[in-house]
This record gives sequence, C-alpha cells and structure tokens, in this order.
Amino acid sequence: MPYFDFNATSPLLASAREIWLRANDEHWQNPSSPYRDAAKVKIRLDNARDQLAEFLGTKPDLLVFNSGATEGSHAILSYLAAQAGSTSRIAVNRTEHPCLLGAARTSFSGRIVWLDTDHNGLVPPEAVSRVLAEGELAAVVVMAANNETGVLQPWAKIAELCRTRGVPYVCDASQWLGKLPASGLGAVDWVIGAGHKFGGPKGVGFLKRAAQADGFRAQPGGEQEGGRRGGTENLPSIWAMTVALAEAEQKKVFLETERLTWRREFERAVLASLPGASVVAAEAERLWNTVSVLVPQGENHRWVTKLDKLGFQVSTGSACATGKEGPSHVLTAMGYTAEQAKRVIRISSGWETTRADWQALAVALVEVARAFGQEMGNVVKA
Amino acid sequence: MPYFDFNATSPLLASAREIWLRANDEHWQNPSSPYRDAAKVKIRLDNARDQLAEFLGTKPDLLVFNSGATEGSHAILSYLAAQAGSTSRIAVNRTEHPCLLGAARTSFSGRIVWLDTDHNGLVPPEAVSRVLAEGELAAVVVMAANNETGVLQPWAKIAELCRTRGVPYVCDASQWLGKLPASGLGAVDWVIGAGHKFGGPKGVGFLKRAAQADGFRAQPGGEQEGGRRGGTENLPSIWAMTVALAEAEQKKVFLETERLTWRREFERAVLASLPGASVVAAEAERLWNTVSVLVPQGENHRWVTKLDKLGFQVSTGSACATGKEGPSHVLTAMGYTAEQAKRVIRISSGWETTRADWQALAVALVEVARAFGQEMGNVVKA
Repeated sequence: MPYFDFNATSPLLASAREIWLRANDEHWQNPSSPYRDAAKVKIRLDNARDQLAEFLGTKPDLLVFNSGATEGSHAILSYLAAQAGSTSRIAVNRTEHPCLLGAARTSFSGRIVWLDTDHNGLVPPEAVSRVLAEGELAAVVVMAANNETGVLQPWAKIAELCRTRGVPYVCDASQWLGKLPASGLGAVDWVIGAGHKFGGPKGVGFLKRAAQADGFRAQPGGEQEGGRRGGTENLPSIWAMTVALAEAEQKKVFLETERLTWRREFERAVLASLPGASVVAAEAERLWNTVSVLVPQGENHRWVTKLDKLGFQVSTGSACATGKEGPSHVLTAMGYTAEQAKRVIRISSGWETTRADWQALAVALVEVARAFGQEMGNVVKA
Repeated sequence: MPYFDFNATSPLLASAREIWLRANDEHWQNPSSPYRDAAKVKIRLDNARDQLAEFLGTKPDLLVFNSGATEGSHAILSYLAAQAGSTSRIAVNRTEHPCLLGAARTSFSGRIVWLDTDHNGLVPPEAVSRVLAEGELAAVVVMAANNETGVLQPWAKIAELCRTRGVPYVCDASQWLGKLPASGLGAVDWVIGAGHKFGGPKGVGFLKRAAQADGFRAQPGGEQEGGRRGGTENLPSIWAMTVALAEAEQKKVFLETERLTWRREFERAVLASLPGASVVAAEAERLWNTVSVLVPQGENHRWVTKLDKLGFQVSTGSACATGKEGPSHVLTAMGYTAEQAKRVIRISSGWETTRADWQALAVALVEVARAFGQEMGNVVKA
C-alpha cells in the first residue's frame, strides 16, 4: 500500500465497516427511546463502553463518547477552566496537536505556561516538575505521541508527577491509540482519542474524564452519556471504533517490533542514499509508524507532489495545519529554522504497510532527489 | 413499518448507506492532506456543501459541517454570547429542543428572556415584536418545527422581524429538514440541522452561519471548514447526509399532502374510538408526520410498553429528555398539567410509513385502551 499518511487518517477497517453496517441495519434506533429495540441499542452502547474501558484500564462510566479529538480537547479544557477560575493557568507542551493548542487558547487565553521541550520535542519530566512547583495549575497538557514526528512523551511519568501534586493531567492519545497498547492510559486523568486514526470511522471519538470530575458535562442538551455529552449517541460509529481498536489491540500489537525494524531500515536507506538528509528526532523513542525526514533540498510541497506522481502519498506535516501560514510549530519548538521546516516531509505507515512498501518509498525518495538534483544542475549520489 | 418514532431518529436510507460506503472505499483520505486523492475528497466535500446550499437557498461558504444539532446549538450561542458581551440577553422560545435550551443556559445563564407561547406552543410574531422592541438582544431563538408536537413555528415571519431590527435569528430546523422543503431557510441568519433526523448517518450535522459572522469559529483546532470548525472533516457522513436530504427534497416532498391526510385520518379514528383522548395542538399547523395524543387514562410509559408488545414503536416525548425528571417542558409551556403530560404519547412517522401502518396503529391504540379499561374495571367503547 503506497499510502504513507496514516497519521492524517486511516482507511476504515473491514471489521469496523461490517459493524457499522450491522448497527445501522439492526441497532439504528435512538438508545434513549423507550421501547425494547432501543434498549438493545443501549446495551450495545454499554458493551462498547465496557470494552474500551477494559483496553484503557479504567471504569466505563469515566468514558464519554463524542465526535473526535478536537471536540474532546475543547470539552476538557473548557471544563477545567471553569473549575479553576478565570485567573488559573495551564501548562502546555509546545508540540501539541493544533486542536489542543486551539482549546488552550480558547479557554486559557493569555494564561498558558509553555512547558520546556528538548531538541526532540520531548517534555522532560523535570520540566513538568518545575512548573508544578511554581504554583497552582488548572492542568498539565502533554500528548502521548506526536503526530508530526512520532516522538513518544513520558506520559506515564508525567501522570505520576501530576497525581502527586493533585494537578489534572490531560493527555491527547490520538496517535498512540491503535499503534501502541492502550493499557495504562486509564491511570491518566483526562485522555483524548479519535476513531479515524486507528481504522475506525471518522466523526467519532471519546474522552476519559477524571474520576473526581463528576460535574463534567460537554455540550449539555439531552441526557445522553449519563448527562455528560448531549447529542444522539452515534452507536454505529462508536461500536465500529471500538471494534477497530480491538483489532489493533488484540491482533497486531505483537507485530510492533517488526514494524519498528522496517522503519529503521527505511531510515538507514534514506540517510545512506540522500546525503544531507536527516531524520527528525532520530535518536528519540518514536512510534513504529512515523518518520519525518529533513530532505536536502526542495520544498516539502514539491516533494509531496513528485512522490504522489510516483504513487506514494506522504504529507508535509499535520494535515490539520494545512492552510495555516508559517512553519510547523512542532519543528519550530525543536529548534528547526523556517527554511529547514519547509524541507520536512512526514511519512506515517499503517499495520497494512509492508516492508516492500517501505523499501519502494526509499527508492522513490532517491528518484525525487535525483530530479531535484538535475533541476539544480548537479546530480545527487544514488 | 411499525416504527413511529422518526422524530427520535430515522433508519439510514439506502442511498445514504451506499454513498457512505463509497466514500469510505474511494474518498476516505483526509481532505486537508496535500496529494491528489486528498484533493478529490476536498472536491466531494465542496460538492456536498454546494448541494446543501442550493437546497437551503444560501451560499456554500456560510455552511459549516459538524457533528449534529447539539454541537451546532452550542457553537452558535457561545459565539453570539461572546459577540454581544457578558450582559447581553437572548430571547428563547420555551418549547425549544433541550439542546437549544442547554446551549442558552450555558452561554446566557440568567440572561434568558422567555418568549410568550400560545396554547399550541406557538410563538406569535407579536411576541417576537414585543421583545425586539424592549431593547437590545444577542439573538432570538425559535425552532422551525417542534419535535414533540410537530407544531410549525412562523419562522419566515420571525426571520423578517429580526432582520428589520438587526437581531440575529437562530432557527433549529432539525425536525423541519427532510420533512418540508429546506428552501427559504437560507434567509434565516443561523440554521441548525442534524443528518440522522432525515435518513442520514448519526453523528453528522451542519449549521448555516449569518453572512456577517465572518469571525465565527467553532472548536478551533485545525483549519478545517475554512477555519470555522476544527476536526477532520467526516466526508463519508457529510456526503451521505446530503444525499439523504436530496432524496427527501427531490423525490418525496410532493407526497406531503397524502401523508398529511393519513395523519388526519388517524387522528379522527383515535378521537372517535377513544373517548376522552385528544390531539395535542390539534388545530395548529403541524408536520405531516407528527401527532401527540393525550390518552384518556394510564401513564404514557405503560402505553409505550403495551404498544411495543403489539409491534408499534412510539415515544413518550423527546428521546433526548429521557432520564430527565418531571413532565415535558413543551407540554408545560402549553398549559398541560403534570398529570396530563404523563398521559401524552408521541407518534412520528416517516416517508416509508403507509396508510395501513397508521390504520393499524389506531386499532392498536384501541386495544391498549381496552386493556387499561379492563384493568380499571370498565370497558372503553371500541
């Protein structure tokens, strides 16, 4: 499969598709309606919640289904802002996804404390300890895995530090879920997830709330989700999302080592054949599926176009940042110049991606580099 | 089809199902991604927006796709609250759907001016004129058609009054769309719609913003929807929703008169065979699909259960209100006592419902009434 943009979105898994159709055929009624067929929908909804809770290691009633990570980010941060009051501050990792940054700016305008990151975009636990020691915080926001670089944050350690100080920890696990085990995330106060990142349908996601946040209510309207999120429950997509996660959790996670090997082989091949290229956050622990490459020349948009013509779909960075001016905030936080940031392409594979796909992509990169070299009047070693 | 709860949710139309699958097969990429297949997704998204704009009679760039009516309500009212300032008031119809009431209470807590309604739950245009004359308002909120009674509000007239005074008008058209022509709604400043009410998928909806509300941004995150709503666009569901609306608009609307006749026949049959029964807002103009019946005896929950056993699915009122304490706010606003409100059952048909279905339901109601009568030791005339 020549698609290398799984961090933007993933195709719907066959299992998720089947369940979505089944739900729309057999369990399409409104789970809040008062007859037996509707009660059956409610049971399916509860089952999906139970299964998701089991994966995360949490209680079902702490899970709230919603439309995705952007909604989750806003719901959580606006709740925390209301709880902590209008002068409260929030500590935020600079390399968060735009939806967390947007939510932080909306609910904590002018009251964001930026967490220090190292050259890999990692938030060292000491940086969290420092801001925790500096005084009251409404929350600490650090994602599980970065969508642009794949860098894994020390979220378990951060959760521990925040717990000790009694400060809510918000962890966007959108890119982690389905790629690495969900287990353990239940120990985090607030978790954010989106179905379409791991083979579920688009337009569905969930959040895990903190156990003590009993008053949490997102977009109040009907009494759905135990009163915690208004809007007719989207059982077909919720069920399909859970099935997609189950597939990742149960069948595929043991394949991680092999997938990591393929990514590393690819990186070595690229570095060997493209002088001047480098891997972003090369030495950091990263998702098995993600590699961002700083190419030696040519703007990333042109690389993407040339690779597309060769049949490979890669990205210039976060799809969510398309249309925004300026370089990636993730790369900027890591110390890259604007000029360098414009030469970074993001490559993100899926469980379906084969070793041969990675190898073919490495060859394609060399071909594109050669084309750039010829444009420039000099030939890159190939 | 013995399902008479279309106002709660509708089964997915075959046409919508087909498009959802096609989109997930062929156009599942992230429309914000930078390669050609993603651009094709963007084109489909634009096409869906164009088509929806045509139905409503508005400009495509005034439409924002989202997860449904509850999200739309909150997004619009929180924007209007921010625009109008912290002392601004909002005029709200008492019979709105809980999601509008929830959004009003969230964004205009303690600053809601309730609009007068008559005994049919109708907001007379004069009631709107009165509050408009009383001073500055952030907005006027009156739905197009009531979800519990089917009563049609004079939204076109209200839109005109608000336009004259330069006050934003917010109209929840969730129950109107797909049942009556969308045409004309484009003239309303702010319109709210939800796909699953008219045969589209659950978890998808849209709002129309006011032309002058250029700064409108819901859940800011990525630059999706022209920066007006963060979150990966759910093209499969958006496209399917548009197809579902197209089916209602193009194929079925001319059948309305016949459907209205069937509902009236049903009402006459019920009134003739159930002494003491009455139709809620009987003389008001109502949706062709909706009738709320005040039954002569027995609580509505018991009626629903007995009808369910006979194969008919009806509701006690808004599914979104299930779990809430107390009588329906809609019926209370109309002057019904709590005891009466507990005897109201909501019946809402779909385009698929036949005349025979309506007739069979009338017979079933008599059967249930007879069972109640026997319980009470007296037999209802049948």
